[in-house]
Amino acid sequence: MNKLFFGAAYYREYLPVERLQEDIQLMKEAGINYVRIAESTWSTFEPQEGEFDFSSVTTVLDEMHKNGIAVIIGTPTYALPAWLAKKYPDVMATTSSGKNIYGHRQKMDITHPAFLWYAQRIIRQLLQATATHPAVIGFQIDNETKYYDTCSVGAQIEFVKYLKKQFNNDTDAMNNAFGLDYWSNRIDAWEDFPPIEGTINASLGCAFKVFQRSLVSRFLGWQADIVKEYKNDDQFITHNFDFDWRNWSYGIRAEVDHFKTSQVLDITGVDVYHPGQFHLTGAEIAFAGDIARVTKDQPYFVLETQAQAFKDWTPFPGQLRLQAWSHVASGAVLIGYWHWHSIHNSYETYWKGLLSHDLQPNPVYYEACTIGAEFNELAATVTRFSRRSRVALVVSNECLTAIDWHPWKGHQFNRDTLHQYNDVFREYYDALYKMNIEVDIIAIDDDRLFRYEMLIFPLLYTVSDERLQQINHYVEEGGHALFSFKSAFADENMKVRTCVQPGIISKAVGAHYQLFVEPDQTLLHSDVLTLSPEESEVSDWMELITPDENTDVLARYAHPYWQQYAAITHNHYGQGTATYIGCHISTAALGEVYRHVLSNTLYQHEPLPTEKSPVIIKRGFDEHNNIILYYFNYSSEPQSVLFNAPTGRLLFSGNTITQNEAITLKDWDVQIIIVETAK
Amino acid sequence: MNKLFFGAAYYREYLPVERLQEDIQLMKEAGINYVRIAESTWSTFEPQEGEFDFSSVTTVLDEMHKNGIAVIIGTPTYALPAWLAKKYPDVMATTSSGKNIYGHRQKMDITHPAFLWYAQRIIRQLLQATATHPAVIGFQIDNETKYYDTCSVGAQIEFVKYLKKQFNNDTDAMNNAFGLDYWSNRIDAWEDFPPIEGTINASLGCAFKVFQRSLVSRFLGWQADIVKEYKNDDQFITHNFDFDWRNWSYGIRAEVDHFKTSQVLDITGVDVYHPGQFHLTGAEIAFAGDIARVTKDQPYFVLETQAQAFKDWTPFPGQLRLQAWSHVASGAVLIGYWHWHSIHNSYETYWKGLLSHDLQPNPVYYEACTIGAEFNELAATVTRFSRRSRVALVVSNECLTAIDWHPWKGHQFNRDTLHQYNDVFREYYDALYKMNIEVDIIAIDDDRLFRYEMLIFPLLYTVSDERLQQINHYVEEGGHALFSFKSAFADENMKVRTCVQPGIISKAVGAHYQLFVEPDQTLLHSDVLTLSPEESEVSDWMELITPDENTDVLARYAHPYWQQYAAITHNHYGQGTATYIGCHISTAALGEVYRHVLSNTLYQHEPLPTEKSPVIIKRGFDEHNNIILYYFNYSSEPQSVLFNAPTGRLLFSGNTITQNEAITLKDWDVQIIIVETAK
Amino acid sequence: MNKLFFGAAYYREYLPVERLQEDIQLMKEAGINYVRIAESTWSTFEPQEGEFDFSSVTTVLDEMHKNGIAVIIGTPTYALPAWLAKKYPDVMATTSSGKNIYGHRQKMDITHPAFLWYAQRIIRQLLQATATHPAVIGFQIDNETKYYDTCSVGAQIEFVKYLKKQFNNDTDAMNNAFGLDYWSNRIDAWEDFPPIEGTINASLGCAFKVFQRSLVSRFLGWQADIVKEYKNDDQFITHNFDFDWRNWSYGIRAEVDHFKTSQVLDITGVDVYHPGQFHLTGAEIAFAGDIARVTKDQPYFVLETQAQAFKDWTPFPGQLRLQAWSHVASGAVLIGYWHWHSIHNSYETYWKGLLSHDLQPNPVYYEACTIGAEFNELAATVTRFSRRSRVALVVSNECLTAIDWHPWKGHQFNRDTLHQYNDVFREYYDALYKMNIEVDIIAIDDDRLFRYEMLIFPLLYTVSDERLQQINHYVEEGGHALFSFKSAFADENMKVRTCVQPGIISKAVGAHYQLFVEPDQTLLHSDVLTLSPEESEVSDWMELITPDENTDVLARYAHPYWQQYAAITHNHYGQGTATYIGCHISTAALGEVYRHVLSNTLYQHEPLPTEKSPVIIKRGFDEHNNIILYYFNYSSEPQSVLFNAPTGRLLFSGNTITQNEAITLKDWDVQIIIVETAK
Repeated sequence: MNKLFFGAAYYREYLPVERLQEDIQLMKEAGINYVRIAESTWSTFEPQEGEFDFSSVTTVLDEMHKNGIAVIIGTPTYALPAWLAKKYPDVMATTSSGKNIYGHRQKMDITHPAFLWYAQRIIRQLLQATATHPAVIGFQIDNETKYYDTCSVGAQIEFVKYLKKQFNNDTDAMNNAFGLDYWSNRIDAWEDFPPIEGTINASLGCAFKVFQRSLVSRFLGWQADIVKEYKNDDQFITHNFDFDWRNWSYGIRAEVDHFKTSQVLDITGVDVYHPGQFHLTGAEIAFAGDIARVTKDQPYFVLETQAQAFKDWTPFPGQLRLQAWSHVASGAVLIGYWHWHSIHNSYETYWKGLLSHDLQPNPVYYEACTIGAEFNELAATVTRFSRRSRVALVVSNECLTAIDWHPWKGHQFNRDTLHQYNDVFREYYDALYKMNIEVDIIAIDDDRLFRYEMLIFPLLYTVSDERLQQINHYVEEGGHALFSFKSAFADENMKVRTCVQPGIISKAVGAHYQLFVEPDQTLLHSDVLTLSPEESEVSDWMELITPDENTDVLARYAHPYWQQYAAITHNHYGQGTATYIGCHISTAALGEVYRHVLSNTLYQHEPLPTEKSPVIIKRGFDEHNNIILYYFNYSSEPQSVLFNAPTGRLLFSGNTITQNEAITLKDWDVQIIIVETAK
Repeated sequence: MNKLFFGAAYYREYLPVERLQEDIQLMKEAGINYVRIAESTWSTFEPQEGEFDFSSVTTVLDEMHKNGIAVIIGTPTYALPAWLAKKYPDVMATTSSGKNIYGHRQKMDITHPAFLWYAQRIIRQLLQATATHPAVIGFQIDNETKYYDTCSVGAQIEFVKYLKKQFNNDTDAMNNAFGLDYWSNRIDAWEDFPPIEGTINASLGCAFKVFQRSLVSRFLGWQADIVKEYKNDDQFITHNFDFDWRNWSYGIRAEVDHFKTSQVLDITGVDVYHPGQFHLTGAEIAFAGDIARVTKDQPYFVLETQAQAFKDWTPFPGQLRLQAWSHVASGAVLIGYWHWHSIHNSYETYWKGLLSHDLQPNPVYYEACTIGAEFNELAATVTRFSRRSRVALVVSNECLTAIDWHPWKGHQFNRDTLHQYNDVFREYYDALYKMNIEVDIIAIDDDRLFRYEMLIFPLLYTVSDERLQQINHYVEEGGHALFSFKSAFADENMKVRTCVQPGIISKAVGAHYQLFVEPDQTLLHSDVLTLSPEESEVSDWMELITPDENTDVLARYAHPYWQQYAAITHNHYGQGTATYIGCHISTAALGEVYRHVLSNTLYQHEPLPTEKSPVIIKRGFDEHNNIILYYFNYSSEPQSVLFNAPTGRLLFSGNTITQNEAITLKDWDVQIIIVETAK
Repeated sequence: MNKLFFGAAYYREYLPVERLQEDIQLMKEAGINYVRIAESTWSTFEPQEGEFDFSSVTTVLDEMHKNGIAVIIGTPTYALPAWLAKKYPDVMATTSSGKNIYGHRQKMDITHPAFLWYAQRIIRQLLQATATHPAVIGFQIDNETKYYDTCSVGAQIEFVKYLKKQFNNDTDAMNNAFGLDYWSNRIDAWEDFPPIEGTINASLGCAFKVFQRSLVSRFLGWQADIVKEYKNDDQFITHNFDFDWRNWSYGIRAEVDHFKTSQVLDITGVDVYHPGQFHLTGAEIAFAGDIARVTKDQPYFVLETQAQAFKDWTPFPGQLRLQAWSHVASGAVLIGYWHWHSIHNSYETYWKGLLSHDLQPNPVYYEACTIGAEFNELAATVTRFSRRSRVALVVSNECLTAIDWHPWKGHQFNRDTLHQYNDVFREYYDALYKMNIEVDIIAIDDDRLFRYEMLIFPLLYTVSDERLQQINHYVEEGGHALFSFKSAFADENMKVRTCVQPGIISKAVGAHYQLFVEPDQTLLHSDVLTLSPEESEVSDWMELITPDENTDVLARYAHPYWQQYAAITHNHYGQGTATYIGCHISTAALGEVYRHVLSNTLYQHEPLPTEKSPVIIKRGFDEHNNIILYYFNYSSEPQSVLFNAPTGRLLFSGNTITQNEAITLKDWDVQIIIVETAK
């Protein structure tokens, strides 16, 4: 793909006035070359059962095509018509909070046959009406699909059959694996299985989440198979994954496995939302990209990202362009705004599009025009280059769910926030992001895991013996592993190991512990890490580590009773090294650990990057090892960076730049330089 | 009416001891001349279905009458007997949180025929037993009636029929007006209508609230009609409205339309509760009065206000008297305490009355004696005077509900508080209160709207084109309009306008905007407003305003990226002016805007009031333009104010006062002066 | 009993590996001489209905016995098998939040016959299999039993019958006692009784809590009776009461009456959990002991206390031993850890035992070994001595529930925390604890109440006339009474008294009040109490007290309007004194009041203890008046205390100590000295 798709979600059905021609004109002026349509308006297409009308879609297809704008068709299955919920109330999911009622989207039971029957019919009808249209370049199946906390009877029955199969019909095997003797929770006949939403057994609870996530993969796979019956070979199937949500995209989703599910897609798509204005850092853009790109080792789509959105996200001048090029630098080849125009009614009225409700050009739209022009000019060049990471962070939905049961922050049963896993994961990610170490994010069970020079494991809590032994082997063979606290604690059924912790990886790590305690303002004491007192603070979790004889202690605890224990260790094992961080430390301290470990391993023979956040640098390579360099300034202050290759070409100006010349970056600016080392 | 009613709610049924004679004796000594009875004890009057016993009421009537104390009879319909709920469970309302259970008051379905049937019977029986009694001066129908979040089946069916009528049976018209295509929420057959409590469509949700509020008017109108069958012409019908509740009366009620509903009453009544002790400011007393007085352009009743109430409201010496005269100054002719005696059991035991649980005279009671004596002496004089306001604040229940859907404070979906509308409304009100500008509060759809010289519109968010055009016309003809941010944004169906904002009123306002953003510590920058940095702070909402050529900019934003935009504008349009405040500013800044605008409009030829809170001044006029002046000191420090008319008479001392003589006010004191300019 | 039991809960069924022999070996090395087993694994014993298998228990019994370790058998009734809930869904309780679902423990309806039928069968089967085993020294019935908010139909029907009996079938008597006329809540036919969970009548609500607590006593009495059919005379019946829970044991339990319920037991047991590390004070240990010891005037069991538990409780070196001896000093003769090994699955995985999940010796285990050895050596000596308290704090579950309805902290309907009663109770307790005044805690209706020289009544809110008259009499006869604010306010039905407050006790107290107000930063003004400004602060509640002529005023209020009122009074009445604290004061101020009152009463002829927290001293006496003295250092700093008896013997070293010699205490240390005064 040597094209950059630039566009928006377009909802002609939502607009209170007819203005398709005006919209297309404004789109063309902005360099918009695709729109995504049709993904939320089932009731418009099928206003009454079996009565179909796709004229709103076909009109858009015809007019877009005439104007050279491509179209992605979305299947409209994430929002049900009222008549369907009225006729078959069971299509609304029963969750752990009770039966959903109609109104909000994504409240259906994606396993219920009545829903599936009507869903496949609307998909087939829509595709019959549109799939062969020359405007259509591909299909988005459903939208940000999750399992919606489905605990419906059908899902529960299916889960029991799933366990029955997993345990070869042997309840004893399950009771043992899950520890169900505790509090008399044993199940000695499958028909006695209690309602899953009541369980207090973390192992069983996590097994159910694995099952629920598999429902999402199955549902999207089923939709993909239907779409394949209608699409031609040039048309792609994609889907827009979203992320954990803390008023913006944050960490991985508990309710869907991005890696497994992306296998049913041709191209992985993501929706990326992030803080703006003075709080824009680019971290969420990079994070989402470092997952999406890796799912299929391929360029990916940003099917949704913010234009104006909320009052606190409406971009400062320059930020929209900075964001767009950041996506490209991470490997995106499609940037789509959510959405073209702001919506005049209902729920998301204040989640604004490129156009305000006035549907007129405005400062944000005008900045999009600049981006469109730049994309058009540079697409062929920039898409030649792809990313290569020497380091990977290893992610696990199972660990995320497990940490939800046994959080590390706050007192037992009084947890601060849900998904504390993502806090640690993002801290381990962000510290690398800030020091311009480029990474991939990969799942723990991925076959490609060991292709990296360094693997970082935040909260690798629940994982099989076999995988841990492979990690030991990876280190032995020269890999570098870095683990956070609580890693390797429990087996794949969330059963805590009965060996001295951190168990199997103690071999590589060269250290062990028996007790963990509350830091209560404990500081790190270190001879090798340079930290202020504030940066030294240990919070929420600390393991009392005893290193083996030859293991390096990077930090100990400054504490009247625990000063003899290590906090952070680093060990040479075989040809590689293993680092263990036994406590929750500041991002600054993480950076120092990374600096120490990297300069003694991957960067032993070259300097670490000198630029740091808010200057962010990304790099791509083509098949001849030519390099493309992106320099981003994520701040309101101008920045200056010394160019450190012999010579390069500035893409926006066409000027040449030579070694040690200053690259100047205005506030919220980007520069792109090509270094043709291959010549 | 040349009388001041002074009294209390009296619950003989609640008392654990028989002491009617002692109570009457203490009441007489306090100058109490009326009691309100009977409004919460249905089960006492009808202990079993169809068995009636009104002896507790008739005894009170007889004894009160003998002692010259008048009685208001309340209909006891807001608290059901247990036997009724047991027999017909459907009388308990189903709300958005589920089915209510019996126990608490105001949990019934006021539309359910079983409830209505029993309610009319107890009303009729009670009135047959009491209406012709010579003690009875009037009737209070029900108590603080609201719709109690009724989402019962009956109410929903009725709502659908109501929409069917509103949209002439045309679902398309409704789908368009409400934007129901969004998220597949279209309704293409009335019988498909989904449960309203699930809707995420703000337009539909707000329409339901309008409908629910109409249920309250209908219910009270129905009760009034029943009462009229029994009452004589001298007897009045009233009702006690309450207000939004933040541990005290605060802003308007979402659940009832005070203006529309007061039309079924002879006299508007209100319940006014407010902070006390060091936190007493008088603002709630004035606010409630400025609504109640205007509903019918008539004196009003304060049917409930606090005596001791809670530990934090028990008045300091002087405060009870200060409060009572403040009500009178606002136009009240009845001040009733809730309640006479404290209650010895159940739920409101710590909401204390004039008497503590010991039922003996106490310091608060003794202060009531002073008030009673003063009321008795001055009633004929003070009731001659009525209020006249040149300025009105314009209120809208529809806007309140709309802002609940789309709050301006906090991030989308993470709103800080419910009813943020009232925050802004009270800020716009309180700033005027503090500078002693007297106002009326009037509803946006009131026919009398344009009789004022100045209209202030806080958050006039959802309003018809027609009304906005009338406002433009009002300005053109010489009126002065002042709008807050977000005004005129959406039409009467909460559909955002497709024109550049603030749309229709841009004509009068002389400015427009396309973007709104998060202030994030932005300050106002102004040459005409005198503000400290702290007072200059913009919070939560800011619109990026571009003024027309001739529009005055009262303030701009001090911000690195938005400094070119206006924050507050002032425009001459026709014979009048329009002021637009495009952001959320401090009360101090509001005061400065008011000062600037008023001294250039209404107060162009006379000075603005020089006294400020804690000295509060209220003014009344009789038909000869004689003036009554109330001076209140809402503080623990003595205050001194110069008298600025040629001569006046101090009502409490009878002394004469002349120009520039000091009026001295002790802590928490009041002085009343008559200026007989007509002589 | 001249033995100290030292052990742990042991769950062989939970362990993922077979290691009974290893566990027993480690137990023996630690001096563990008992284990508690079987109390949570019903489904293991009865995996399918009527199929029993107690082999896991009998194996443990045999092996423990072989190794000289005694066993307490727990009845496993607090956690149901899944098959039972599946077959009879009604065994799950319906609460005020709805119907429970299966999963969590303690969610059953302890009044439901289906539950009771299966419960008695499993108890009987278990006892048949184990009761006569020589290892078994006693039985624990159920576990931390409460009423689990049961509002099931059966419980409600029973409650109505209970009221019918209490009020001799006279609904009027009930309506009057509870004040049900209020808000039309009268009940004039028993069959009209509404669902109790909806009531807003505090009197009725509290009566239901009394009834619910009686269900717990009845249930445990029923279990005790079953056990008696199987046990022999040497075997005891115990139960482990827990306490109110604020992340640790705190105050008394609302859901069970420890005093009444302990009457069905041979020995009272308690579960004591408390903050650790830098936050360890010993207060919870002493508090629980001062209740448990008094319930039966007997030594008691600590059936559960923390070993490692949570990360914030894992003890510093020395703390586990300090805690163990603190229990003994309070009168415990059994200290059991919850639990032996950490659990590898499910809900309480991070509530760690003596052993970590690695099941290996660790620093905490090694400290237990020290304790075990010391217990073994000193048991015969230390168990000779029992406690004697001159002062008692008086507790009342009825008052706790009453204060839940009418809290003293925060604004009405916006209470800060549940169980504010316990805040005051603990403050009144802790102030004495810190000054080393030893106390008993006794229930208000206990026959032994008046045996103490001084009685302290925190929040004695609801109490009968008769009991108050007895207290007056007690003072008259020479007793010393100290009351907090709000005492004596309401009768036993929570009806507020109609006399001037504090009503009946005004006679002894020599003071009265009519108003109570918000302190709003009011300070105490006192000539007799030595307090810093911060310590003088009055918060949340203040009564405006007028003392009688001869009553001493210990403090007045520093307040512009309330300075004439007393805050704290002290009165000589008959041969005794009564102190009244009319406001919520700091713990420091409480200490000063105690100091003043005690030095003028009980300590008139001897000095008050000079040591203060963190040095805690406990004392025991044998029948010859020999004394045992415990010196605890609850701090990280070494402490030194002068020995002030002629001569004593240090139990750990065997050394002699003489008057004025320093007892040195290391950080978190204990010393025990015997003073044989009887010689």
